[in-house]
Amino acid sequence: MENFKEILKKYLSFKTVSTDKNYQKEILACVQFLKALLEKNKFKTKIISNFGNPLVLAELNNQAKETILIYGHYDVQPAAKEDGWRNDPFSLFEDKNKFYGRGVVDNKGQNLIHLYTLFKLNQENNLGYNIKVLLEGNEETGSEKLEKFLKTYKNLLKADAILISDGEIVDHLPIIDAGFRGVINLEITFQTAKYDFHSGLYGGVIPNSLHETIKILNTFFDSTDKVLINGFYKGIEPIDKKIILNNKKIPFDENKFKKTSGIKKLFTQDLDFYTKTGLWATLQLTGLSGGYTGEGFRNSVPAKTIVKINIRFVENQSVKEIIKSLKQHLKKVSHSYVNYEIKVKEIAPAVKLELNNKYVQKAKELLKIVFKQEPVFKFSGGGLPIVAYFKKILKIPQVLVPLANEDCNMHSVNENFDKKLIEKGLKFSYLYFKK
Amino acid sequence: MENFKEILKKYLSFKTVSTDKNYQKEILACVQFLKALLEKNKFKTKIISNFGNPLVLAELNNQAKETILIYGHYDVQPAAKEDGWRNDPFSLFEDKNKFYGRGVVDNKGQNLIHLYTLFKLNQENNLGYNIKVLLEGNEETGSEKLEKFLKTYKNLLKADAILISDGEIVDHLPIIDAGFRGVINLEITFQTAKYDFHSGLYGGVIPNSLHETIKILNTFFDSTDKVLINGFYKGIEPIDKKIILNNKKIPFDENKFKKTSGIKKLFTQDLDFYTKTGLWATLQLTGLSGGYTGEGFRNSVPAKTIVKINIRFVENQSVKEIIKSLKQHLKKVSHSYVNYEIKVKEIAPAVKLELNNKYVQKAKELLKIVFKQEPVFKFSGGGLPIVAYFKKILKIPQVLVPLANEDCNMHSVNENFDKKLIEKGLKFSYLYFKK
Repeated sequence: MENFKEILKKYLSFKTVSTDKNYQKEILACVQFLKALLEKNKFKTKIISNFGNPLVLAELNNQAKETILIYGHYDVQPAAKEDGWRNDPFSLFEDKNKFYGRGVVDNKGQNLIHLYTLFKLNQENNLGYNIKVLLEGNEETGSEKLEKFLKTYKNLLKADAILISDGEIVDHLPIIDAGFRGVINLEITFQTAKYDFHSGLYGGVIPNSLHETIKILNTFFDSTDKVLINGFYKGIEPIDKKIILNNKKIPFDENKFKKTSGIKKLFTQDLDFYTKTGLWATLQLTGLSGGYTGEGFRNSVPAKTIVKINIRFVENQSVKEIIKSLKQHLKKVSHSYVNYEIKVKEIAPAVKLELNNKYVQKAKELLKIVFKQEPVFKFSGGGLPIVAYFKKILKIPQVLVPLANEDCNMHSVNENFDKKLIEKGLKFSYLYFKK
Repeated sequence: MENFKEILKKYLSFKTVSTDKNYQKEILACVQFLKALLEKNKFKTKIISNFGNPLVLAELNNQAKETILIYGHYDVQPAAKEDGWRNDPFSLFEDKNKFYGRGVVDNKGQNLIHLYTLFKLNQENNLGYNIKVLLEGNEETGSEKLEKFLKTYKNLLKADAILISDGEIVDHLPIIDAGFRGVINLEITFQTAKYDFHSGLYGGVIPNSLHETIKILNTFFDSTDKVLINGFYKGIEPIDKKIILNNKKIPFDENKFKKTSGIKKLFTQDLDFYTKTGLWATLQLTGLSGGYTGEGFRNSVPAKTIVKINIRFVENQSVKEIIKSLKQHLKKVSHSYVNYEIKVKEIAPAVKLELNNKYVQKAKELLKIVFKQEPVFKFSGGGLPIVAYFKKILKIPQVLVPLANEDCNMHSVNENFDKKLIEKGLKFSYLYFKK
């Protein structure tokens, strides 16, 4: 059997960038590589098309009592050496402590940890479960067609539990994810004229779409970014005191964070960091563009301004209600001479996970053994849309155990995986699946 | 002698785009064309370098009593067929009523009107003045080095008056420019962190540079765009009632304007359109860019937002005071956790012209004859920086007679010059310079 590093090296070499249509060949090659790898290790494998990039579905019936489904994704974020990578991002490179490369933690490296131990346990005739594997290729583009896929292939995916490793531990503490907030991405276009006008000849007399946008957006939040849209927080139930206490115990080094981030202020007067990012709603402007934004100046009164908004919400809130609140607010605060159009473009549901089951308990106990630290249950502000769909459609327990280091630079340059954590991950996975 | 159209056709064919350094060859070719044209028509010509793109200085000593200096610029704004032009913008094309092409009014076509009549009058031995011609190639980039040039070549430029044709008439009414507002272009960068953070993992807890920018910019103006920066309007003297009365008489068809522009509201409660744009100060945001503004979404909390601001002010105001006011305001309204940096990049002085002199009176009388309408004195919100430098350095009367049609699309696609107005312009110029 090849060692872990050899397989990882090959796996990372496929430029499986799903956000760019030019990488179709690389994606198909990677799917073939996964198929061959799984089949070589005794899995029955199926490639499923027609739901975006192909899904790899594999099965190993071990005559065990229970079946566990492993989910992962083989697609990655874009990367180029010019962005500031130390080496070619699609060639594994390593130093004393870490492996580097695009996808090394998100998610190739993390799903490979489980595949690798499963191959090994099966070889040793020591595998304690039947296994199903689902590897997809559209996670980085929002897994748009996955809900439909799950509905269609519900029976084929039947299992007793799902195990997913994605994301990062906190500091040195092992993590079990307790839930993710949902996402609404939308765009609003504000328009005050058909086209731009000379700022000297018309400025001050005609409405300026940027000014009007600012007047409108300024009504969205108070000085601490609390959202002032009526009904925006509707559905957020009082948060369990035990959860708040737990969240406060999760380490967050404010001084260190401020130093490395350059941020001088945190809006945590009302709620601690993890409660606020994991269990509270937020509205963030993620992009705004109006007028001329290139080099130098073009002295025009901008006719059009486009705003990108990212809303995060919790499980009991209604997407419909939130969008309705926003629309009502806009109607209330916009001048009649400003035209606007709202385009809701992406929605991902919020999810809270069931933690009182033996699959989660087993993970908790094993993480404690491997990490020599009590794991924490953590609600995260952003996560995997698939988890909500698994909950809704497959209705089986899910165990989410992130294995990457906190400074792994996921989605950024020099994405890396701490070698010691890979060792711990392999150990945890081995203990979890063995007889 | 070639006819007007033939010369214009050749003149427009040079891609003299001064905002793009790739057009140096075209600019030099155009300068050689102008030199040859002027020399062929008996002008003594000099090319002056070291002040940006070359200046063409020409002289025709006619043994007359008085000397008139003609100013124009041969450089143009960028243009490409793909922007929506009906034809190649650097090939003259025409329909029944108009000539089309980049520079046809701004400013090649307008300066050629005077050159053409001067050549003709000289041929006819009917020229009433000594003539100096100054054609420059950096007007579209702000004529940065022109002040220094004027100081250096002050003696060579000596004249009794200056005549300039640039800009547009209003409706069917001939115009004499009475003054221009000054310009300050600046950029402010607002920063809340060293880099962007995941909007799910950090949104709501860390400051968002876009939110902070909006909170700050919202304090800049009231709902009618009146600037709320303390001291911003300082130095604007009470405006002469006669001027306001005159301005109110200049036609401005509000309903027609609203229909063609798509603008539903005008901020003219306090002052009429021409007084407000010509004799009042304004602050316009002309560009704003923060976060991700491409296709789709990148769910990050933006660390940095850049704002471009265009300020227009009148002659008695102090640029230094305006910038100081802005800085004090920013200091007052910004949170301590927001870093900002102001970069003042372009300044052009404001200017009011002396209208009580025989050169302006002559223009007024002749315009009335040619247009069969009483010309109006008009203050304009934006104009030629050169005019303020001429006033400051040469200290001689200036006569500014725009000749282009109101719908000429200067700086935009399908720039055009009404053939009837070219006829009128040629007639006016002929009458002005003849013995």
